[in-house]
Amino acid sequence: MGADGETAQVAEQTTRVLDRARAARVVRLPDRWLADRVQRMIEPAAVRLELWDGSSSYAGSLAPVGDILVADRRTLWGLAVNPDLWFGESYMAGRLEVRGGLEPVVETLTANVAVPTSWLHRLKALLTRSNSLALARRNVHHHYDLGNSFYQLWLDRELVYTCAYFADPEMSLEDAQVAKLDLVCRKLRLRPGESVVEAGCGWGALAMHMARHYGVKVKAFNVSREQLRYARERASRDGLSGLVEFIDDDYRNVSGEFDVFVSVGMLEHVGVQHYQSLAEVLRRCLKRTGGRGLLHFIGRDVPRPLNAWISRRIFPGAYPPTLAEVTRQILAPGGMSVIDVENLRLHYRDTLAHWSQRFAAAREQVRTSYGEAFRRAWELYLAGSQAAFATGYMQLFQVVFVPRESPPPSWTRADVYEAQFRRHPAGAD
Amino acid sequence: MGADGETAQVAEQTTRVLDRARAARVVRLPDRWLADRVQRMIEPAAVRLELWDGSSSYAGSLAPVGDILVADRRTLWGLAVNPDLWFGESYMAGRLEVRGGLEPVVETLTANVAVPTSWLHRLKALLTRSNSLALARRNVHHHYDLGNSFYQLWLDRELVYTCAYFADPEMSLEDAQVAKLDLVCRKLRLRPGESVVEAGCGWGALAMHMARHYGVKVKAFNVSREQLRYARERASRDGLSGLVEFIDDDYRNVSGEFDVFVSVGMLEHVGVQHYQSLAEVLRRCLKRTGGRGLLHFIGRDVPRPLNAWISRRIFPGAYPPTLAEVTRQILAPGGMSVIDVENLRLHYRDTLAHWSQRFAAAREQVRTSYGEAFRRAWELYLAGSQAAFATGYMQLFQVVFVPRESPPPSWTRADVYEAQFRRHPAGAD
Repeated sequence: MGADGETAQVAEQTTRVLDRARAARVVRLPDRWLADRVQRMIEPAAVRLELWDGSSSYAGSLAPVGDILVADRRTLWGLAVNPDLWFGESYMAGRLEVRGGLEPVVETLTANVAVPTSWLHRLKALLTRSNSLALARRNVHHHYDLGNSFYQLWLDRELVYTCAYFADPEMSLEDAQVAKLDLVCRKLRLRPGESVVEAGCGWGALAMHMARHYGVKVKAFNVSREQLRYARERASRDGLSGLVEFIDDDYRNVSGEFDVFVSVGMLEHVGVQHYQSLAEVLRRCLKRTGGRGLLHFIGRDVPRPLNAWISRRIFPGAYPPTLAEVTRQILAPGGMSVIDVENLRLHYRDTLAHWSQRFAAAREQVRTSYGEAFRRAWELYLAGSQAAFATGYMQLFQVVFVPRESPPPSWTRADVYEAQFRRHPAGAD
Repeated sequence: MGADGETAQVAEQTTRVLDRARAARVVRLPDRWLADRVQRMIEPAAVRLELWDGSSSYAGSLAPVGDILVADRRTLWGLAVNPDLWFGESYMAGRLEVRGGLEPVVETLTANVAVPTSWLHRLKALLTRSNSLALARRNVHHHYDLGNSFYQLWLDRELVYTCAYFADPEMSLEDAQVAKLDLVCRKLRLRPGESVVEAGCGWGALAMHMARHYGVKVKAFNVSREQLRYARERASRDGLSGLVEFIDDDYRNVSGEFDVFVSVGMLEHVGVQHYQSLAEVLRRCLKRTGGRGLLHFIGRDVPRPLNAWISRRIFPGAYPPTLAEVTRQILAPGGMSVIDVENLRLHYRDTLAHWSQRFAAAREQVRTSYGEAFRRAWELYLAGSQAAFATGYMQLFQVVFVPRESPPPSWTRADVYEAQFRRHPAGAD
């Protein structure tokens, strides 16, 4: 669907919201007072709040980036009381519409509106963050077992559901995901015959890439049945079953000793209360000499709980940690030294832009199979995440580490980029 | 002086210690009991403790890496009560000798003997770590104003007194220091005409390199009069006074707004209690859009006070922080996002090996000008530091950061290494 199609789509949705508004009660004085409060709250962002009668108290000096259309009184109250949660809830339910593009509006809100984080909120986030083995499985099931066919609608060919690496900014999502898999392998300096444990392997793309291109033996852990089934079939089809073993178990039950530990996009689901067990896993399973590991995760500059709506609807139990939390609570107690950190947040912004485009193109299929509320929830989740990475509200860290006694896996980092220059020799453009 | 000269030197020192031992009182039962305790304490390292009568209770299964010769009862008691402090004090005073090579013995001690860190010790370290502007100046004076001619005896041509970067492991110290200066510039992606503030500029080598090779305007802060005098003379001689301004002031008095903040080897001297002011400096002086910074510092995996002897004799007021301390107490409150971290600890090991060699070659000159205790103190400090970086007891971090709203300074890190491959094209070896 092109830009015209999307415009038509928004116009149609807008009409629907306005139709509903006509049916709603008239706007009264308390509504106007409350709308004014909400408008002032979001005012640092040039976003116009519009009530169900078309009225607005927007008074910004800039032309608004876009408008938030509020369909009824209940939605307005939700926004006033708990915007963090009710923006998403209302959008999902179709009682809130966004004019001017969902991503740009959410991006300017993210960049400019400070969401007050109460102690109660933080406490609640802390209490609900306990991922016991059973709960971890349930939380993973909530998100990752939606059905492989759902993710096949909008992920890349390899089904890589983490930040891609656009080695060249113009490359396709397919290529950028393969580039990411390879970047991880190069940072880990994999050598043929080495043993690798992967914690949280998704649909198996990294495990297969490591085995196929670097000749390592991989034990890949996952608690998502749907993903495992897919990954095993694929390994068998590609003749890699001898090198890659997909294990239906929690990463905390990893046993044995390995040359390499790798985890891409799982740490966000571990939860602060279980960092100690991850530290123990690292201490237990990484070879003290020559061992090394890589954690790839969504992170923060400052600790704060995940957005309440994302936490309720999309990622129950998730928590993106700060670098300090990871080094202090996982790597240091695990006896690990940080060797290398790279922040790839803009690569995640672009990855999410690709996903959003593909998701929009699959709009009708998603609506038919999962319903409109689900489709709207995911649309908002993808746009909101893109905004978070675009604005620096969220970070994407790749951290390479080694057991303290062990030398860094490479003398400099030049070798990681050598392949890039070998493929595109200097001067050849 | 070659290896033979060094052997003769150690033999001569050993004889001197033994001569003194002959004059000492005989070894009594309490001495043996205490020596046994000390031997058991250091036993995880294969190091033999030898008393002034030549006796030892070493019972390790391995041939010892080397021996610690204790000349008298007072030294033995010092080692028993506060080894962290008294090993250095006794070595400096010539009441303790090391056979088998100072660096290998200190390295195996560092790697294998856990120094108990009492709360009292940590408290004291915390209390004495307050670098007021006046104290900071005094602490800097203690170390850096020993006289430029002292450092010229054993540093490289450019007088760079921080970890070098051996882009090629075989390169000379001179080349490796220039490679480090350039690595810092490339990580910062300096562009001609930009403004740079440097906090703690040493003898000015980085400021001059940035101005000369990248065409930026630098304000370089330092509170060491000796270093400033040298740096200004050099800038004037090289015709760079128009681009580089050396300022006799504390980094906390930096004013104005800059494209780039850089600090190499100063953070260790800031002290935890002043991280907040550094955070404020960053927030105040870095451009919110397009600004970026680099901190190059000696760090730790886990927080602990600096070795008591180093703190007393070499670096009063110094404290090597963890990555978590730096991100949580400086960068996050300063509104900064971490973009890139590199750990270069083995490069510092090699840098220190070079310095030790040169320092040994200048032995007679140092002894004549500064006395034998001073020479021995510095010999131990260099060997101990080399051991600390060799074993992973200390780390060397380069951290690149940007204001949260600002994009990372480069799309990938490949550009940092491009020059390396341009100089040595792939395949040409």
